[in-house]
This record gives sequence, C-alpha cells and structure tokens, in this order.
Amino acid sequence: MKFEILHTSSKSRARVGRIHTPHGVIDTPNFVAVGTNGTLKALDNKTVQEIGLQLMFCNTYHLLLQPGTEVVREAGGIHTFINRRLPIITDSGGFQVFSLAYGSVANELKSRGTKKTDGTVLKITEDGVLFRSYRDGKKILLTPESSIEAQKNLGADIIIPFDELPPYHIDREKLIKSLERTHRWEARSLEAHLKNPQGQAMYAVIHGGIDPDLRQKSCQVLSQLAFDGFAIGGSMGKTKGEMIEMLTAMMPALPLEKPNHLLGIGDLESIAACVPLGIDTFDSSYPTRAARHGMALTQAGPLNLTKGEYASRFEPIEKGCTCTTCQHFTIAYINHLFKAREMTSLTLTTIHNLHFMVELMRRYREAIAADLL
Amino acid sequence: MKFEILHTSSKSRARVGRIHTPHGVIDTPNFVAVGTNGTLKALDNKTVQEIGLQLMFCNTYHLLLQPGTEVVREAGGIHTFINRRLPIITDSGGFQVFSLAYGSVANELKSRGTKKTDGTVLKITEDGVLFRSYRDGKKILLTPESSIEAQKNLGADIIIPFDELPPYHIDREKLIKSLERTHRWEARSLEAHLKNPQGQAMYAVIHGGIDPDLRQKSCQVLSQLAFDGFAIGGSMGKTKGEMIEMLTAMMPALPLEKPNHLLGIGDLESIAACVPLGIDTFDSSYPTRAARHGMALTQAGPLNLTKGEYASRFEPIEKGCTCTTCQHFTIAYINHLFKAREMTSLTLTTIHNLHFMVELMRRYREAIAADLL
Repeated sequence: MKFEILHTSSKSRARVGRIHTPHGVIDTPNFVAVGTNGTLKALDNKTVQEIGLQLMFCNTYHLLLQPGTEVVREAGGIHTFINRRLPIITDSGGFQVFSLAYGSVANELKSRGTKKTDGTVLKITEDGVLFRSYRDGKKILLTPESSIEAQKNLGADIIIPFDELPPYHIDREKLIKSLERTHRWEARSLEAHLKNPQGQAMYAVIHGGIDPDLRQKSCQVLSQLAFDGFAIGGSMGKTKGEMIEMLTAMMPALPLEKPNHLLGIGDLESIAACVPLGIDTFDSSYPTRAARHGMALTQAGPLNLTKGEYASRFEPIEKGCTCTTCQHFTIAYINHLFKAREMTSLTLTTIHNLHFMVELMRRYREAIAADLL
Repeated sequence: MKFEILHTSSKSRARVGRIHTPHGVIDTPNFVAVGTNGTLKALDNKTVQEIGLQLMFCNTYHLLLQPGTEVVREAGGIHTFINRRLPIITDSGGFQVFSLAYGSVANELKSRGTKKTDGTVLKITEDGVLFRSYRDGKKILLTPESSIEAQKNLGADIIIPFDELPPYHIDREKLIKSLERTHRWEARSLEAHLKNPQGQAMYAVIHGGIDPDLRQKSCQVLSQLAFDGFAIGGSMGKTKGEMIEMLTAMMPALPLEKPNHLLGIGDLESIAACVPLGIDTFDSSYPTRAARHGMALTQAGPLNLTKGEYASRFEPIEKGCTCTTCQHFTIAYINHLFKAREMTSLTLTTIHNLHFMVELMRRYREAIAADLL
C-alpha cells in the first residue's frame, strides 16, 4: 500500500490523497460502505462497483461464522468470492464480539451501565476472547493470531489488528488495563501479519475510550509500530460534540503521512466535522440503512420517500442526479413500492444513497483541493 | 394489436407467432412474469427489460388499492409510472377479489368446500361485486365498467374483461348461472373498452369450471365477440392431468388466428404440456417465487441453492448461462447470501430464473419452427 497526499488544505488538516492498493486506488477523503456479509444490503456487488464505491468494508466476525474464512480462502479470497475487483477492508472481529455482547453505546447509555454483557463473551484473557457463536452456539476463541489468520484467508487489501472494545461505562483503571492489553494484542497482530504480508496493509486501531490522555498515549504507542495507517475505534463520548472534541485533540498526535480511518462513523454531520481534522476514510451503514427506512439523501437534506404527500411526485429523488434510480424512476413510484412493501424500493433507494455519498466525497475532495475547507 | 403466426407445427397445435403491441413485439410462445404491484419481486424494471422479458403482468386489483389507478393515469400510464418500455398486460381485478375471498383451489380442496369465503366479498349482483379492501377496510364496488375504467387508467397493452371466479366446489346450476353472468360481464367490459380503445387489446376469459360442456359453450359464446385473443381462466381441475385433459378438449373450440393465454399457470411441466395445445403465453409467479425460496431453475432440473453441500461450489448455477448472475457470481456465494439472509440472494436468483424462462421459451419457439413438437 502507498498513501499519496496530493494536497493539504491551507485552512485545516484536511487533505486530498490517494491510497494505492493491490485492487486499485481509493481517492481520499472517501466514504466506505459496509457490506457485512460480503454484500451491501439489497445490492449486488456488480452494481456497487458501477456506482463507483472505491472501498468496501466486510466484517471478519460475520464471515468467520458464515461461510467461514476457509471457504473464502478456498474460493481464492474475498475479492473472488464476492466478485469485487476494487479494494476491500476487513476488521478484526473484535469490535463485533464485544459490541454484540455489550450492546451499542446508545443502548448502554440507556441502561446506565447496569447491563454489562449478554453472555456471549465467555472469557477475556491475555490470549484473546472466548465467545459463543450467535449462529450455532459453538465456542470460538478469537486471538490476535487467529484474527489475522482469518483476515489472511479473506485477503482484503486493508486489515485491522485484534483489539478489545471496552464498554463505555468502565473505570479508569480497567480502561488502562484494557488499553495496554489492546496495544499488546495489536503488536501481536502486526507481528503475525508481517510474517506473511501478502500485499495487505494493516491499520492500527487507536483506543483509550473517552480519556484524552489515554488516546494520546494510544497514538504515541501505536505510531511507533510499522502500521500502514490508523483507524480510530472505541467510544469517544456520548455525543457528536464530544467525539469531535476528542478527535480535535487527538488527531495532531498521529503522523501526517499515513491515512486515517474513522471506524463505524459516516453520517453527514460527522463527515463534515472530521474531514478538516484529517480523517481520510469513513465507514458507516448509515446511507444504506437510511435507504431501507425510506430515507433518501439529497443536497437539501434527507427525504422521507414513504410520506403520503409523495404519492404523485413524478420527479426523481434529486433533479440532475445521475444515479440509475434517478435516471429511471420517480419519487411517486418508489413511494408506491415502499407502501406495497416491495423489496425493489430498498434496492432503488440504496443505489441513490450510495451514489449520493460517492458524489459528496468527490465534492469534499474538490473543496479541499481549492482550499475551501 | 396484431397477431402474426409465423409457423404452425406439423405435429401439434403449437405455433410460433408474434403479438405486435404499441410497446413492441411479444414472440410466442412466451412466458409472462408477474409484477403484481408494478415490479417483479426483488428486481427493478430496468433489469427485467435487460433480461429480455417481453411481457409483464400487473394486477389491477392491487394497483387499484395502492397507489390507485388515478395516480398511475396522472403519471402518464403504467409504462411511464413503472418505467417499462415493453408490453404490459393487466387483469380485471375479478380474479383477486374472488380468489382472496375463496382461497386457492388447493386450500379449497383441503377444506372440502366447507370454507366458502373469508368475508371480504360482501355482495355479488348483476352489477358487479362489492368487496372490502384488505388495505383499509373500505368497501369497493367493482363492475365491468369500473374495471375497464381502471384498466384504461393503467393503459396496459393487453387488458382483461371483468369476470367471476366461481369456487371449485359449486353445483352445476350455480356454475351455469355464474358462467352466464360472466359472459354478460365480459360483453359489458368489451363494450366499455371499445368506446375508447386507446390502442389496447382485450382478451376474453374462458370460464366453465371443470365442466367440459360449459367450457365449450364459453369458447363459442366469447369467440363470437370482438375480442383480440383468449385467456383461459378459472379452475380446470384438481390436478395437472385434469387441466391438460380439459385444455386438450377445449382448445380446438377456439379460433386459430387469435392468441391464447393461460392465466396464472407457468410451471415447467404445464408449459411443456400446453404449448402443443396452442397456448401462446403463460403468466406465473413460479420462477420468481421459486427463486425467493432458493430454487434455481436449470436444464438439469431445479437446484436448491440453500443446501449445505453447495457452500464450496465455486461455479455458476448453470455452466454456459449468460445471465448476469451466472456471469458474475458462484453457487457458493449465493448459498452464503441465503444463509446470511441477505436480500441480494433473492435478486441474484430471480435474475437467473427469469433469464432461464426467457431462454426456455426461445428454445420452444425454435423447436416448433423445426416441427419438433
């Protein structure tokens, strides 16, 4: 992997760049759609490529349980298995193991820290984490080494070291212990990776929860290792404001010459706030999930396609939009499909929203190149 | 509409023909996919056209309740509303009103005629049928005239007169009364249609239940009216064998020069038996519904894509198949998508099955042209 910075804004840490991978270039800043099981929901990979999405996120945890990473390896790797020519990034599986156990931060906040786990995480040791498969109840031990082995089987362009996702509600002492163990796990992951790089790049995952000092420490520790880039993970606060404050303080602690990825966050507001901080890629299921709820993204804001008032709106979701949905179908028709509970409604709206993100990120790159942000 | 017979087999009543409509040609014999709500399930209409499906069936009953045929008219007709360039056929709504009330013949057979109606059909009079919308409980009166008005609003290339679908369990006297009323309803439908043809063609619906004499009578009565073709409707027996026996006796009573459509039947066995009887078009949700249950159609028979043994079958559903699914994805990947409950599995399998039907019917036309059947 090579990261080429074409232009850094004179106004902020925002930069226009190019990540060169074995499966082609990712222009940055860019949006990364989430295809958990090797497909975006309601779209096939041929269509996703045609939309111009340059990087796709697949989840090692899900692929480990179904179909199993051995099957993907046997197919010739994830690109061949899912038939995607363009770059793919996989995570370590750690996030899902822990987040499925703890629930989301939002759920955790609601339960005020009382609900610690759903019982799927059986044991966390220095070695790794023992959990129970949600599919068949089998016990699985995930370690830095087994996560990297799984990610070698998958063969994505960018991989992620094994880390622990501590719950939001955690005391400082435990958070420090978790962070130190995560750093050791990441170093072991890197070591396992470098034994057999296979042309893959590995991004470190910065942790430290909502503690600014621990975040700084994580940046310092991990930037001394031979990672190819950085992913920012873990909880960064209860609100977007807290997250932005944390990132504003933290990002200068990362080396300028490597790409930065924000894990699991890609709503429009966060992208707007984080591009100037030097975040280069964002993965999120927001645009595809919104589509499945009938929300179309437009430059004037989200449009609820299921509203009764759109029954006779015989125009595309966005005038001038070049996506195949807007080129062929009207709001009225998609409104009808949603009301008639036709799956086609989800596909058509997902195509539009993904195209919207591709265009949005192109505009960000142009704005940075012109020093506008 | 013009029906052109290119070749009649020397071996049977099978013929190769061309139905010319305002939206292009339908080569016959052909398969007609069912897009109840103005879309095939799990496919968009652009893709359906690309697969080469020449005629699509939409259901007036469903479109009447959602979005309403006025909305479709306002859009510029069904072709514009759903964005389909190619021919469309709509039914009268009668079949759905009655079949939803009585249940399917199979269900009726199970209940041995004891379950007459679910209460949605409120009243059948000479005027028409009063029923309750399953969507909002509103009472709707469907008459020959209102059905034709609805089908004028939709503007399909081929439309169907309003008919009664009598239950399978009915005594002869009642069946005769139903048939005579259906004939009067069809004549009224034709009259309403011919006041404003709009370039649409209308197929009569042959009824008579499982009584061969009444079927003959229906053919005689309806072929004296100015219909453009014939659709065969109603129950024709408990088994495929009984249906074929009935059609074998009945088809010679229809004029040779007009196209014949078999309503709601399009499984592979029935197509094989009915093409030699002179059926020109078949509509059925079988290939698309089978796809959603993981059954792929192949020349060697149906293939259950969800079977565990296909987890590592890294080859297309059918070797040499030119559909976009077989060109891009393997059985192993689609098997994985089914197991992971991804909607994409339904779309990919539907594309293959529809392509299979298009190719199957092309082979039938070639076989007839060569006097092979």
